[in-house]
Amino acid sequence: MPRMAVLTGGGDAPGLNAVIRAVVRSATLTYGWEVLGVRDGYDGFLNPHGVFPLTLGDVEDILARGGTILGAANRGNPFARKVVRAGKEMLVDVSDEVVARIGSLRLDAVIVAGGDGTLGIARDLFHKGVPVVGVPKTIDNDVWGTDATFGFDTAVNCAAHALERLHTTAEAHHRVMVVELMGREAGFITLYGGLAGGADIILIPEIPFRYQVLCETVQVRIARGHKSSIVAVAEGARPEGGREVIARPGDAVVVPRLGGIGQFVGKYLEETCGVETRVTVLGHLQRGGSPSAFDRWLATTLAGEAVRLAVNRQFGQVAVLRQMQAAALPLDEVAAHVKRVDPECDAVRTARESGICFGDQAPPLPPLPSPTP
Amino acid sequence: MPRMAVLTGGGDAPGLNAVIRAVVRSATLTYGWEVLGVRDGYDGFLNPHGVFPLTLGDVEDILARGGTILGAANRGNPFARKVVRAGKEMLVDVSDEVVARIGSLRLDAVIVAGGDGTLGIARDLFHKGVPVVGVPKTIDNDVWGTDATFGFDTAVNCAAHALERLHTTAEAHHRVMVVELMGREAGFITLYGGLAGGADIILIPEIPFRYQVLCETVQVRIARGHKSSIVAVAEGARPEGGREVIARPGDAVVVPRLGGIGQFVGKYLEETCGVETRVTVLGHLQRGGSPSAFDRWLATTLAGEAVRLAVNRQFGQVAVLRQMQAAALPLDEVAAHVKRVDPECDAVRTARESGICFGDQAPPLPPLPSPTP
Amino acid sequence: MPRMAVLTGGGDAPGLNAVIRAVVRSATLTYGWEVLGVRDGYDGFLNPHGVFPLTLGDVEDILARGGTILGAANRGNPFARKVVRAGKEMLVDVSDEVVARIGSLRLDAVIVAGGDGTLGIARDLFHKGVPVVGVPKTIDNDVWGTDATFGFDTAVNCAAHALERLHTTAEAHHRVMVVELMGREAGFITLYGGLAGGADIILIPEIPFRYQVLCETVQVRIARGHKSSIVAVAEGARPEGGREVIARPGDAVVVPRLGGIGQFVGKYLEETCGVETRVTVLGHLQRGGSPSAFDRWLATTLAGEAVRLAVNRQFGQVAVLRQMQAAALPLDEVAAHVKRVDPECDAVRTARESGICFGDQAPPLPPLPSPTP
Amino acid sequence: MPRMAVLTGGGDAPGLNAVIRAVVRSATLTYGWEVLGVRDGYDGFLNPHGVFPLTLGDVEDILARGGTILGAANRGNPFARKVVRAGKEMLVDVSDEVVARIGSLRLDAVIVAGGDGTLGIARDLFHKGVPVVGVPKTIDNDVWGTDATFGFDTAVNCAAHALERLHTTAEAHHRVMVVELMGREAGFITLYGGLAGGADIILIPEIPFRYQVLCETVQVRIARGHKSSIVAVAEGARPEGGREVIARPGDAVVVPRLGGIGQFVGKYLEETCGVETRVTVLGHLQRGGSPSAFDRWLATTLAGEAVRLAVNRQFGQVAVLRQMQAAALPLDEVAAHVKRVDPECDAVRTARESGICFGDQAPPLPPLPSPTP
Repeated sequence: MPRMAVLTGGGDAPGLNAVIRAVVRSATLTYGWEVLGVRDGYDGFLNPHGVFPLTLGDVEDILARGGTILGAANRGNPFARKVVRAGKEMLVDVSDEVVARIGSLRLDAVIVAGGDGTLGIARDLFHKGVPVVGVPKTIDNDVWGTDATFGFDTAVNCAAHALERLHTTAEAHHRVMVVELMGREAGFITLYGGLAGGADIILIPEIPFRYQVLCETVQVRIARGHKSSIVAVAEGARPEGGREVIARPGDAVVVPRLGGIGQFVGKYLEETCGVETRVTVLGHLQRGGSPSAFDRWLATTLAGEAVRLAVNRQFGQVAVLRQMQAAALPLDEVAAHVKRVDPECDAVRTARESGICFGDQAPPLPPLPSPTP
Repeated sequence: MPRMAVLTGGGDAPGLNAVIRAVVRSATLTYGWEVLGVRDGYDGFLNPHGVFPLTLGDVEDILARGGTILGAANRGNPFARKVVRAGKEMLVDVSDEVVARIGSLRLDAVIVAGGDGTLGIARDLFHKGVPVVGVPKTIDNDVWGTDATFGFDTAVNCAAHALERLHTTAEAHHRVMVVELMGREAGFITLYGGLAGGADIILIPEIPFRYQVLCETVQVRIARGHKSSIVAVAEGARPEGGREVIARPGDAVVVPRLGGIGQFVGKYLEETCGVETRVTVLGHLQRGGSPSAFDRWLATTLAGEAVRLAVNRQFGQVAVLRQMQAAALPLDEVAAHVKRVDPECDAVRTARESGICFGDQAPPLPPLPSPTP
Repeated sequence: MPRMAVLTGGGDAPGLNAVIRAVVRSATLTYGWEVLGVRDGYDGFLNPHGVFPLTLGDVEDILARGGTILGAANRGNPFARKVVRAGKEMLVDVSDEVVARIGSLRLDAVIVAGGDGTLGIARDLFHKGVPVVGVPKTIDNDVWGTDATFGFDTAVNCAAHALERLHTTAEAHHRVMVVELMGREAGFITLYGGLAGGADIILIPEIPFRYQVLCETVQVRIARGHKSSIVAVAEGARPEGGREVIARPGDAVVVPRLGGIGQFVGKYLEETCGVETRVTVLGHLQRGGSPSAFDRWLATTLAGEAVRLAVNRQFGQVAVLRQMQAAALPLDEVAAHVKRVDPECDAVRTARESGICFGDQAPPLPPLPSPTP
Repeated sequence: MPRMAVLTGGGDAPGLNAVIRAVVRSATLTYGWEVLGVRDGYDGFLNPHGVFPLTLGDVEDILARGGTILGAANRGNPFARKVVRAGKEMLVDVSDEVVARIGSLRLDAVIVAGGDGTLGIARDLFHKGVPVVGVPKTIDNDVWGTDATFGFDTAVNCAAHALERLHTTAEAHHRVMVVELMGREAGFITLYGGLAGGADIILIPEIPFRYQVLCETVQVRIARGHKSSIVAVAEGARPEGGREVIARPGDAVVVPRLGGIGQFVGKYLEETCGVETRVTVLGHLQRGGSPSAFDRWLATTLAGEAVRLAVNRQFGQVAVLRQMQAAALPLDEVAAHVKRVDPECDAVRTARESGICFGDQAPPLPPLPSPTP
């Protein structure tokens, strides 16, 4: 009986368990393959107990569960693995061990669900002869070549609902609410979550902002009768002119280890602009929770395609989404690029035109509203 | 100041208010147009009070609200409007009145958000000289030419969560749960909701089913140790060989006005197959509720594109979704087609391969499970 | 090491797994008892494989899960168990076998989570010497002596959210929406769910209704400018004068096996009153799903109290809720009563005063509203 | 026609709009009173435009909305109102002005929905002759004399779901997750939310904690095979021996204006205990959002009782919840006390017995688990 292994690497994303479930079900029920699970990413191949059989029973109840039953505790790159030798930490290439283990396990295919980093390693292993098929995964939506990655829709729903919850309390108290969202390099969660959650200001890594524009925007809103403003900030958003997050000239603040730009924006608005401000850091809420229907479906679809690619021996490919259908792209191509928010894209343009401020320039001004009773 | 009108036609869908909001905001803030709302679809043009100004204040709190603030109470086709004359109901073409009203209102553009029927009328009005731009809308996802329609994602989430809630209670009581979902002609909600909600059997209009296959599938599942089965049925699903829904030869049942195929499938499984069965009819829950983040974003994006098309005088176009970006297609093209689930598509194929039964043939069989303690 | 068993009987309710979890954790971690699980209610004592050890690991991930990991597939009353002898079905008292098995298992306590029926059996077993402690459970909230039962809050949230989703779509289309909710004998879910979901008409078993009052109420609402009406109907609601559900004089309809009073009310409103009506049957959605925070907390609290009662050898008691604290009542007392909605209670009175119709009399009339633009 | 006013004071809580709605509906429809709304708490009585008629139409769609349509932007105490005179801020007693305004408005009753502070002012106004009836409101559940306050259940659900979302991602990455929850003086949200969300460590103001106990608990959990730990921290939780939050001897940290104890606990666990830790600050998410079914029902019930108290001229009373029924208590009594978590109460005891650590002592230890594959 032919056999494939499945592994999940990098940060977890809602939908990983749907991938594992679909791989086991399709491979077992339709193609008669055996499926093995690999624990904690590529590390599982270096661990004597790291590879084990996955049965239909193991995946019975996992479709709706967040996280990954295979674990993702590790980001070990087998081409540059941290080891301690003679009291010193160093990076060692152990990829040959991985390749050897895959050989000794007699694996006919390895399905790898992961983001940028994990897929890049998959590509390198493919070039060393490992029969790899990739499945793109990341809540950040920053994998090139696919219309969407699973986990993203769930994260956007989480962000949008958080923003939405804040509207009524912000209005009742005439406050600014700042919400820091995930996204170190890519602002997709903040852009789409902000649009869907009715944010007034959206700050993303791809569009450097100016503190003064924030203050002006908030003050214009107040002048025009708005009782509150909602600010969605990506954790990787930065002011123009550098990566420092100094709130005011003269401040000697340092980026804190926990918490970040949201606190700085909040402090600035409260202290410099003089508007009552509250800050929420959503953090890992965005990575957790049960996947949305879209993410369950997407994860299942990509996994189904990956199994077919594996069974047909089309290795070195990634299963991607194209206009709501599965398609395949070479790993070489996908891993060579990253995806970022294009500041000229539709979503940004529409957001700007509908009055959202991105912190780089003032938004179009609404006329002074007539007084409400 | 140039002015555009916006109307929403046909059944309501979560996201319509996001369209109205984005049209008012973009047109007013960025392009300096006046926006008018049209009440209750095309009927508003025949009603002296049916067209009224829409301001920024009117759309302030509506992004997250289901339904449509413009109303959708009517499906009047101005080319074939029901009127009663001399005690008899007849269809009359009043489209000239609509065209005249649009002229007298000095509208520079009319943005029409609707499904098949509404867009078809929009096309016909365009050919009579009305400066129309379309926005596709339907929870059924059956509009041709767009990757997705808003309202669909919300409906699929609703369906998936309903199915998910039933798993644990079905297992606790060793029952079959049948859930009837929306979709008279197109099975998208049932297919995607069923996939995401972990359905074991999915019945859609595009794939006629056989009652006997349902019974066999349920019985095989019981024999293999599954404590329950979940059946997702589109309201338009029908058995092979005709549109009748007769459960057993000899039954003289008639399709009830309220409720439908779900009850028949449930009755059949309970009485003929002898398995305890419960039926849920989700009904209009799927059409109601706050739009998902995806639908809010999609509705906003298409509305933004529609405003740009209108401002640029590109009439007779529909704003559609292509790979997560807005694009435009001619109304003639969009209204000339319908979209249905292709029984050979990815989603169906992956579903079949992962063990889901579509009622036309037995699914791949799992091996007999080992007994659990 | 002393040992207790835990069993769950009757229909499942969200929170049962929280009970099992808290019993295992408290008994094991704090009191050093062993815990056994009993499969499928009292039946487990008659099944050689029906009783098995429950460990901390078994309850690790179940707090948020609906259903019961012990199963509830059976309602077998050991005092009157259905058996087939000589081809005939008869009821046999096998309670001595149950008592004997409990003895041979050397159980120092048996914790029984169940509703009316299950607790009545527990009382009878207690009088035969079994060291029983009860935990009341039912989504219907009809157990006497406790401020609330777990499962109820989850069911009410489910019902309220379903009603809420229907408002916008009902308004958009000027329709009546009828939602059939659980409750054969007690109307608590419909009363509280209806109040929380903004129902206009609430029909419960404790207050017989008249069809004509429904029609009048809906028509008065239409006359006063309301675009829609929402009707919440308990499955056990019945018209005055009998248990039949005949919609109109002359109708020869029979109560259908699947579906029920909701369909009749819907049919009546559509055909006799002439208002467009849609019907939703929520069904087992109300019994499924993850427990609400309140139900998780309540289930945990009652289980903790039950363990303390057991450890202190206070048998024949039920752990109940009194003003947000756990308390104990004799099984004899709890099992001797049922709880129903008192038609004169606060909730009904407040509902009536705020304009809700219970179908027995017209609600207070709102003045004619001023026309909206 | 007699007339009553309704005002909402202090921080907003989900359910305030349900109170306003029920007051308007009951008073108008059943008792024929006129209802006036007071804007922004007691301040409305000092503002010429601060009191205005509330109609049935004004409250039509607000049952499910968070916040308060009356505004709560102000915490002005008319007995000690901040004013600036001669460039200096001072506190002035303007209560006579409020009393005079209430007289000139010919109010027969004033219904005040608020927490501790607001109800204390209501009591003082009552003793100056104002016909006041109180409705207790606070997400913190710290009002004495009522089984529960509305807003609390919604906040607990929000907290529990946040904790729940973190479980899978915490496990996937072998991390500690710290979630800071609301509650400066009272730990109810953290206690009940933590119980319902499966927290392993719960820190509340009423039980001072020791940093070292946190570290030991987390390390014991790791030693026993738990892949993650979830810590729920009330914003008012403090270490033993003082109110400072210094993480380690020698640290010169100061409590930050934004963010707080959660960051300190997170920093301590990461840096001193050496376990990877992430921090989430839920913030105002807990105060926002649509009220839960329980809170909608509770708010409606208390408002109905308050209207009856007003109509029957029973002033100086507060409508409270007693065993799921409305009751009345003197304002003097309610405003004289506060409610805090009793460290010996049921909920804490059950939590401790089931293995939860409160930071003051190590929890009962689970046995070493057997290795999982």
